Amino acid sequence: MKLQIFDSTLRDGAQGANISFSVDDKIKVIETLDRLGVDFIEAGNPFSNPAEMQFFQRIRGMKLNRSKIVAFGSTRRKGVTPEEDGNLKSLLAAGTEYVAIFGKSHIRHVTDVIKATPDENLAMIGESVRFLSSQGKKVIFDAEHFFDGFKTDEAYAMRALQSAFEAGAYCLCLCDTNGGIFPDEAYAITKKVTETFPGTIVAIHCHNDGGLAVADSIEAVKAGARQVQGTFLGFGERCGNANLSTVICNLQLKRGYECIPAENLKDVYESAMAIAETANVAIPENQPYVGMNAFAHKAGMHADGVLKYSSSFEHIDPEAIGNKRKFLLSEISGKSAIYDKLKNYFPSLDKNGKEMGAIVNELKERSLQGYSYEAAEASFVLLVEKLLGKYNSSFDLINYKIINEQPAIEGKVASAIIKIRVNGVTKISASDGEGPVHAMDLALRSALADFYPEIANVSLTDFKVRVLDSDKATAAKVRVLITSANSSDSWTTVGVSEDVIEASWLALVDSIDYALMRAKR
Amino acid sequence: MKLQIFDSTLRDGAQGANISFSVDDKIKVIETLDRLGVDFIEAGNPFSNPAEMQFFQRIRGMKLNRSKIVAFGSTRRKGVTPEEDGNLKSLLAAGTEYVAIFGKSHIRHVTDVIKATPDENLAMIGESVRFLSSQGKKVIFDAEHFFDGFKTDEAYAMRALQSAFEAGAYCLCLCDTNGGIFPDEAYAITKKVTETFPGTIVAIHCHNDGGLAVADSIEAVKAGARQVQGTFLGFGERCGNANLSTVICNLQLKRGYECIPAENLKDVYESAMAIAETANVAIPENQPYVGMNAFAHKAGMHADGVLKYSSSFEHIDPEAIGNKRKFLLSEISGKSAIYDKLKNYFPSLDKNGKEMGAIVNELKERSLQGYSYEAAEASFVLLVEKLLGKYNSSFDLINYKIINEQPAIEGKVASAIIKIRVNGVTKISASDGEGPVHAMDLALRSALADFYPEIANVSLTDFKVRVLDSDKATAAKVRVLITSANSSDSWTTVGVSEDVIEASWLALVDSIDYALMRAKR
Repeated sequence: MKLQIFDSTLRDGAQGANISFSVDDKIKVIETLDRLGVDFIEAGNPFSNPAEMQFFQRIRGMKLNRSKIVAFGSTRRKGVTPEEDGNLKSLLAAGTEYVAIFGKSHIRHVTDVIKATPDENLAMIGESVRFLSSQGKKVIFDAEHFFDGFKTDEAYAMRALQSAFEAGAYCLCLCDTNGGIFPDEAYAITKKVTETFPGTIVAIHCHNDGGLAVADSIEAVKAGARQVQGTFLGFGERCGNANLSTVICNLQLKRGYECIPAENLKDVYESAMAIAETANVAIPENQPYVGMNAFAHKAGMHADGVLKYSSSFEHIDPEAIGNKRKFLLSEISGKSAIYDKLKNYFPSLDKNGKEMGAIVNELKERSLQGYSYEAAEASFVLLVEKLLGKYNSSFDLINYKIINEQPAIEGKVASAIIKIRVNGVTKISASDGEGPVHAMDLALRSALADFYPEIANVSLTDFKVRVLDSDKATAAKVRVLITSANSSDSWTTVGVSEDVIEASWLALVDSIDYALMRAKR
Repeated sequence: MKLQIFDSTLRDGAQGANISFSVDDKIKVIETLDRLGVDFIEAGNPFSNPAEMQFFQRIRGMKLNRSKIVAFGSTRRKGVTPEEDGNLKSLLAAGTEYVAIFGKSHIRHVTDVIKATPDENLAMIGESVRFLSSQGKKVIFDAEHFFDGFKTDEAYAMRALQSAFEAGAYCLCLCDTNGGIFPDEAYAITKKVTETFPGTIVAIHCHNDGGLAVADSIEAVKAGARQVQGTFLGFGERCGNANLSTVICNLQLKRGYECIPAENLKDVYESAMAIAETANVAIPENQPYVGMNAFAHKAGMHADGVLKYSSSFEHIDPEAIGNKRKFLLSEISGKSAIYDKLKNYFPSLDKNGKEMGAIVNELKERSLQGYSYEAAEASFVLLVEKLLGKYNSSFDLINYKIINEQPAIEGKVASAIIKIRVNGVTKISASDGEGPVHAMDLALRSALADFYPEIANVSLTDFKVRVLDSDKATAAKVRVLITSANSSDSWTTVGVSEDVIEASWLALVDSIDYALMRAKR
């Protein structure tokens, strides 16, 4: 049976501490989720500020394969008509086919928080849904605090849904807003709703304050909910929202529901990595399904058990979702996956040859050091060139010296001196900059300009820093990712070191080597 | 109703990647869990190596209020008598009143993994339990792969339990070893067992591979299980074990079970912090109940809702378990939330006064610059002190100079020289380090040591870097968060600059100012 998946990473997810998305980040997230094939992407609240509204206008022309964009807002305010309500007007202006509006369904929230009469609140719901529907919108009604409301005053909570239903809502969404319900409650209460509104799409929207959001969502689906709302990696306020990557894998692999197209299931892991990378947060290593260690076995009895009978310590085949089995001490990497990636760059490479063995070993070694090539294919290609003896360095570093001082001299805190050699010719160059990496980048480009004028067409477009073992505080290792582009292409490189400047230097050198290597071809 | 809580942080938890405990660590964990009042503490496998056995001997004399120590092992090997089996002998030698032994209950594991006949395996279980019981031990029988075994061959799985039961087992423990079951299966299968063995203590032992371990445990309890096994913070192989801090809070606060003595519930948060500290891992900020952000509110509307009606966005009172409500400070915070946060620090602050207006404006201004005080309350308090004219700087910076060079000199790439003035006295100090920030941190501490010896008790425990406008590449602004701790407390500070070193410097100075300010109070 088909289930609708509704992702709110960009709206409810952005309420999480430390989660913020730039406009480009948001577009990347939308592209990733659309490629994976979720049904709905809630992209923000156009009324909250002008930037959000501009964002909806910007994405209006985006070509999506499958996902529908949803704009989020609320029912009208007390004492105004829908036509006068700024929030409803902005939902129309956002230009999406689907809109989600939240309204109160808990009697105490009506009387104590918004201080409206019970009937007034029902009118706010009904009129808002009817108004948006009359303007051609499909309306998802988010019944806020629905489960607690149901437990406090069942009749009133159901009347709130009834108001939205009668006004023509496309979907009734049951929210466990404070995240406290148990799976048996999720089942029993959702069942009441699906029996009362047969034929209507009922959605479930859970928060994880009791560590039960995934279970609650599963039980609601069993009770007849046909849409699951959540965030792909569980981002969200407090303890987060229902983790959709977990919900999708559980329901599609174990209960036979179709959440996303079956052929895309193998992309769940990669999609998770892409979203985490865009949000610049690390996926917890022990996260179900998509964590780095979700299928990691310590050597010994368990590893032996897995080899004899894989379901011993694996509840699913990790390859089904694109993750990999891992042995923490005697790692067996996915040679096929690596070969698959390399064969375009190195057509003569033999999958079963000695060279492939050396590549797999080096990759393992580097992973232990903290390198990650998932997002840095250019550095991986250069690494393989080095292993195959095909690499020609574009320059030799003789030395560099970076100085950073306060008080700043004429506004610049950092300066760099770099001495290099190209084909026997030595060149020294210096620059100041906004920070040490910026100064280093400018000095290196200046030194290379005489030898490689094509470098002028390459610019750095993205720079990311991740602290790896942050509990080592300022002595921690950092991983730097640099994305560079010329007029036709972009590529990402990586560097790892305890020294943020050295890590940046390594990524910078790779980015220039890669540019020059491509120019030669 | 009383439930037994069985904590395996020191045994199954230690299978988690990056988790390891020294002997002193283990003793601290035992003390913490005993003080909190769990019933059983599984302390290790005495047969696995001599150090583990020594550990059991060392803790033999430990005075515990409530918890019973459990030694873990397995049923006897094939083809030996219990008396000959080294593992069973070591369980006797460990000297605990309770022992837990695992055995096979899944027919395929009997035939394919240990390659025994079905009857031979049943004899291994029965004889091992009988032997240990005859020596005065209370035996917890861990039926490995029980749920999958039940689904594959129900009769055989039940016969495995029957063998342990007839041999006098104290408790029958149902293990979901690969972590894949759903809550409804946990309920139905546990129900079969509790009905078959009325009056026997049945335990539930779940893993979190489907993100369902807490829900599975709760459903098993509903089906009559009277002991819950897990690890206090969810540590464990792959995706971890059932998180006991979540299970305890859920069942005791919401279902009325007595898991730990009622008066100790308020110590759950502190116990979690203590165990995390001992294991040297950070509790995920969004972890249910005990995460730093488990009760943190960001959106203006939500914060307003909580103040009007606390259960709006809080499923329990955070104080009940010793955690605290928190308002994250961001551009969308309202004045009420900011005031609420500040009134503990500045009791005389007037919510509607001019000063509050200035604080709100400054916060907005800083947000635009890229500052985020959500996670950095200490920096926020210092900022307000400055605005109120109450701030006294602990030192003046005269200048610093950071040098970073390649090739590295004697292995260190970075060095720092810092000159400061305290009460008219000038001090210059230098250090090298793993990177520029590390060198700077060491040099600053060395310069301050003469003036403020208490700085020696403060250490940096976490360091995070986030590139804000990463499309500006190496000229992008970065935000640095530094967490510091002394023996009783921890605090986080923030710095923002285009220069990663300056951003780190700003966060570092705040962390030291805050430490000294607290010491003075």
